[in-house]
Amino acid sequence: MRNRCIIRNVKPQLEGGRYYIKRVAGESVTVSATIFSDSEDSVKAVLAYRHHTEKKWSEVPMQLIATDSFEAEFTVEKTGFYSYKLIAWCDELLTWHRIIVRKKELGQNLHDDFFLGSHLLKTAAKANTGNHKQLLTAWSKVLGDKDKYEEAAALISTQDFAAAMVRYSIRKHPTEYDNNLRVRVSSAKEQYSTWYMLFPRSTGENGKPGNFKTTEKRLPRLVELGFDTLLLPPIFPIGKTNRKGPNNTIGAGAADPGSPWAVGNEHGGHKNVNPELGTLKDFEKLVKSADKAGVDVALDLGLRCSPDHPYVKEHPEWFKRLPDGRLELDEVPPLQYSDIVNFDFECEDWKGLWEELKSVVEFWIDKGVKTFYASTPHYKPFNFWHWLIEEIHKEHPDVVFLSGALDRNLIIEELAMTGFNQSLTYFIWKTTKKEIEEYVSELVHGQSSQFMVPNFFVNTPDIFPSYLDNASENMYMIRYALAATLASNCGMYGPIYELMTGQRHPDSRERYFHSEKYEIVQHDWDARNRLTDFISRINKTRQENPALQTSFNLHFSQTDNDKLISFVKTTHSGQHAIWCVINLDPHQKQGGYVEVPRKALGLKNRWINLQVTELLTGEVYHWFNDWNYVELNPSKLPIHIFKVEMGG
Amino acid sequence: MRNRCIIRNVKPQLEGGRYYIKRVAGESVTVSATIFSDSEDSVKAVLAYRHHTEKKWSEVPMQLIATDSFEAEFTVEKTGFYSYKLIAWCDELLTWHRIIVRKKELGQNLHDDFFLGSHLLKTAAKANTGNHKQLLTAWSKVLGDKDKYEEAAALISTQDFAAAMVRYSIRKHPTEYDNNLRVRVSSAKEQYSTWYMLFPRSTGENGKPGNFKTTEKRLPRLVELGFDTLLLPPIFPIGKTNRKGPNNTIGAGAADPGSPWAVGNEHGGHKNVNPELGTLKDFEKLVKSADKAGVDVALDLGLRCSPDHPYVKEHPEWFKRLPDGRLELDEVPPLQYSDIVNFDFECEDWKGLWEELKSVVEFWIDKGVKTFYASTPHYKPFNFWHWLIEEIHKEHPDVVFLSGALDRNLIIEELAMTGFNQSLTYFIWKTTKKEIEEYVSELVHGQSSQFMVPNFFVNTPDIFPSYLDNASENMYMIRYALAATLASNCGMYGPIYELMTGQRHPDSRERYFHSEKYEIVQHDWDARNRLTDFISRINKTRQENPALQTSFNLHFSQTDNDKLISFVKTTHSGQHAIWCVINLDPHQKQGGYVEVPRKALGLKNRWINLQVTELLTGEVYHWFNDWNYVELNPSKLPIHIFKVEMGG
Repeated sequence: MRNRCIIRNVKPQLEGGRYYIKRVAGESVTVSATIFSDSEDSVKAVLAYRHHTEKKWSEVPMQLIATDSFEAEFTVEKTGFYSYKLIAWCDELLTWHRIIVRKKELGQNLHDDFFLGSHLLKTAAKANTGNHKQLLTAWSKVLGDKDKYEEAAALISTQDFAAAMVRYSIRKHPTEYDNNLRVRVSSAKEQYSTWYMLFPRSTGENGKPGNFKTTEKRLPRLVELGFDTLLLPPIFPIGKTNRKGPNNTIGAGAADPGSPWAVGNEHGGHKNVNPELGTLKDFEKLVKSADKAGVDVALDLGLRCSPDHPYVKEHPEWFKRLPDGRLELDEVPPLQYSDIVNFDFECEDWKGLWEELKSVVEFWIDKGVKTFYASTPHYKPFNFWHWLIEEIHKEHPDVVFLSGALDRNLIIEELAMTGFNQSLTYFIWKTTKKEIEEYVSELVHGQSSQFMVPNFFVNTPDIFPSYLDNASENMYMIRYALAATLASNCGMYGPIYELMTGQRHPDSRERYFHSEKYEIVQHDWDARNRLTDFISRINKTRQENPALQTSFNLHFSQTDNDKLISFVKTTHSGQHAIWCVINLDPHQKQGGYVEVPRKALGLKNRWINLQVTELLTGEVYHWFNDWNYVELNPSKLPIHIFKVEMGG
Repeated sequence: MRNRCIIRNVKPQLEGGRYYIKRVAGESVTVSATIFSDSEDSVKAVLAYRHHTEKKWSEVPMQLIATDSFEAEFTVEKTGFYSYKLIAWCDELLTWHRIIVRKKELGQNLHDDFFLGSHLLKTAAKANTGNHKQLLTAWSKVLGDKDKYEEAAALISTQDFAAAMVRYSIRKHPTEYDNNLRVRVSSAKEQYSTWYMLFPRSTGENGKPGNFKTTEKRLPRLVELGFDTLLLPPIFPIGKTNRKGPNNTIGAGAADPGSPWAVGNEHGGHKNVNPELGTLKDFEKLVKSADKAGVDVALDLGLRCSPDHPYVKEHPEWFKRLPDGRLELDEVPPLQYSDIVNFDFECEDWKGLWEELKSVVEFWIDKGVKTFYASTPHYKPFNFWHWLIEEIHKEHPDVVFLSGALDRNLIIEELAMTGFNQSLTYFIWKTTKKEIEEYVSELVHGQSSQFMVPNFFVNTPDIFPSYLDNASENMYMIRYALAATLASNCGMYGPIYELMTGQRHPDSRERYFHSEKYEIVQHDWDARNRLTDFISRINKTRQENPALQTSFNLHFSQTDNDKLISFVKTTHSGQHAIWCVINLDPHQKQGGYVEVPRKALGLKNRWINLQVTELLTGEVYHWFNDWNYVELNPSKLPIHIFKVEMGG
């Protein structure tokens, strides 16, 4: 009750400390707050932080950046969790100094003030050691000596003395703002990853179905294309009851392989592999080979069950059931997932169920998997994810979870808050310059940027965007260029993307016909084309330029043509910038003037002097004006990626 | 952990429940929130509330007003504190009904759904009694009877059945949002009061100083002018050490009465009266007479001390002192309050000090005082006020505290949050139409409207606004008209205001020369003029029109003349509206068109048909257009107060 400072508007924080914000190791956290007190006393504040393995708090003094407005930042070096809090107090030393300087200006007698100051400096000295203690003690003596009035009067006006009054403190009755504020610090993978999804059973050749072994054969192609993450649909045994046939039909034939999302049969469940894909050893070999090639294998957790899943018999209480005990099928009209039954996350033995699912994740971590994908995570409770992800990260801070939810923004954000490292986004449905600029600006500079790391997929097994239907290579190139330069996390579902073999389902606006979800497909895994070449070059450019390895450094700049989108990405140090201009029109050449984003580039001089190197073509330009002409022919290259070097 | 609903953005709330919002008895509180869950389940929510004397929570169902957006309101009937919280859950009954209706539309088989529904209705029946139980049980039987498929199919589509699915609930694993959210409910006085401040020692006549008895003589004048609150400066004994002389000079003569804010001398302190004003009995008689006349006596608590205050000797530890034990004078340059020493609210015996100050308030409550004024409350800790006001309100919910702080907006708002019932505002410095509209709109519709009740004083002993210096009656009328119609709480410091006898201090922009703070002044307490007549009529109009008795019902309407300001105030029921148009120009007649505020008046017809009665002149107008011509001559009346009756 004796503390007098009020601390308000502490940012960043999520729901009063219920959730944590996110960073990757090496990044910084800037914390701001409104801090004030009654009366005229001067306020001081520090930002305190510590890693979860540390007991001692480190402190950074907060800077007064405007009336009542304070700010400080700290760097998160290690993965894991950091806590941070603020401490503020009315500082007697600083208050005393402010008043005595005013009084001196007004020509008032300072005897009593020197006397008080001497006492305060002595108090401050006690809290210090070495040179600091010595200095404060010496000053205390000068102020305390009635015969040194002139010397004391001179001393208090020196810069050194003023600086010391800021540096040294008498921390009396501090107000502590400790609201369980936390930062989760992940490995660099959270911020930068390039995903390729394929169906292992479709990696075969010569009419034979694929498996883990044939998937391994596709690794060189992935590396050539520049991907670092291989996303697999659920690899577990597939149920037989109500198995789905081609195009999601009910009543599959004997030869139909079924949907990998109907997990579990007599061969096991979420801790087993589908025997048609090989053995667990084969899978582990794939993971190891991928790792050698610089590729992480990512697993779709597929947390739903076929009625044939061993859990159904072993733990009947874990499932949603009708009052007479029959399993409740997952049928929210008009959808009918008759091959799937759902866990009852609220059941009496919820703890047992949750722990078992956690053990599934741990099982695959043990097999070398560090990256997980959750399909429709918003059909499981938010509390479950919040608990699961934090539990896993306590032991394995480098594990990455990607949320596959595409629902209301509220839901996508809530999942990000529960702890998912990355989130699929609406990018797939943003096509015009205005839509892209608004959406991406909100993602990278809006509130959610503290906790949501976007991943831009150009397609998924569930979404064949209508603009790709019967589209030319140009359109595929534009969309990949956008995804891979706007966002540092991006992905595609191939080879249907790069081979452009997708066909629209006649009854749907954006589903695939003969989807691999229900059928085994043969692809030409050796095919190369203009698009594969382009993807390789884009991904290589991402690998070579750190500015393309985060999403939150992006600033759009103006163009005078609505088909040309322009943006700059700078590195933290600001020394190196990447400037992209993309032609959104797949049909024809577009030209126009684009504005130099002075602020984002940190340009302060009146005259522009930029040397830009086009990274895809190697061409070099010199720009001396605020607006410069750019022309892009989508049939050649729909994007310019300029590396900007600041001139003299 | 098993609860699945997420409750967000709960409004109103202040700093996560640290502070309470404010209402007066009979008002309502509208609570809104974002509520959602995972999956497709239907969400239900209730707003629960209870008075602090009640154990049982009352509940109001929340209405879904937009996707994921819920709202409900409750009325606060009694003074004291109400708590409120939200409870939300995924409702199985509502979810089941939504799904079965969809399935029926799609022509799907409903057997299993009827079976499930029968079971759910039986569960719901168990939680009900009487007719409700009977109805639910009957329906459960219909759905459970395989031979009644058609009857069941018809039943689920009836309006009664659908309504019942909303009304009855199965509250499984609810999420409770209980953040110590509270409303303080005060007496009507918090919202509506008309203050008159005078110095008792200046109420004398024939050259004699005034006292409590002569103050009593001024009550009829107050009543005639229409005031209901008589604010007195501190009435306690006045210190002699460093007593201030006329015009705040240091070194008072023997005859100088001193500043009432330098409290305490050998006659006592905050629980005694200045013997020059009479006895405690005289004061109590004044309070009683005032009460009979419908006037509350309000006391400035003056929580500062003269060095002569008995506390200084009795509790030396309660005061700010230099390291050698000498008292620290209140001297923040350039100000020098040499007659005042400050409490050290952070001292070791802070509890003793705080309790003693609480007992001061209780002492005067015991003497019949229900209204208190705190001058410069922002020079005492916010925590102190927060504690003091809540402590007092626990026993005396009808006591009103007015905050006299005029500092940064942040400080004014913080004091309001700590619990002050009313707050002085910047109104005194808002003069142009734009300034007034912006400021008042923010006060009555902005965030602070949940906790800050403004009081518009036209002057105070410390502020003689520069625009009143040498101003005409017209200007004084305009300012009072604005204060008394814009805000339901308003005040003036008289008789210097209504007699227009104030003179500007030659060294100051807005201080009085020969301020009553330091001198005894003689006034002509019998004088009447155009201004006193105007004030009486305005205050009478306030008394007679409930729409003028709250501030939060105000909406500005447009005019085509920057000197004319127009606003409407409606009653809660919306049946009766007051429409004010004020000429801000004291020098000349101003005319112009003013717009009918359709929305605020709830007018939905295309054609306007309004009958308006001018309450000051009795004139009646009929308006048929959206814009109507108004003319105001400040030398007659600077304001129109129209009573609006809605036509057919």
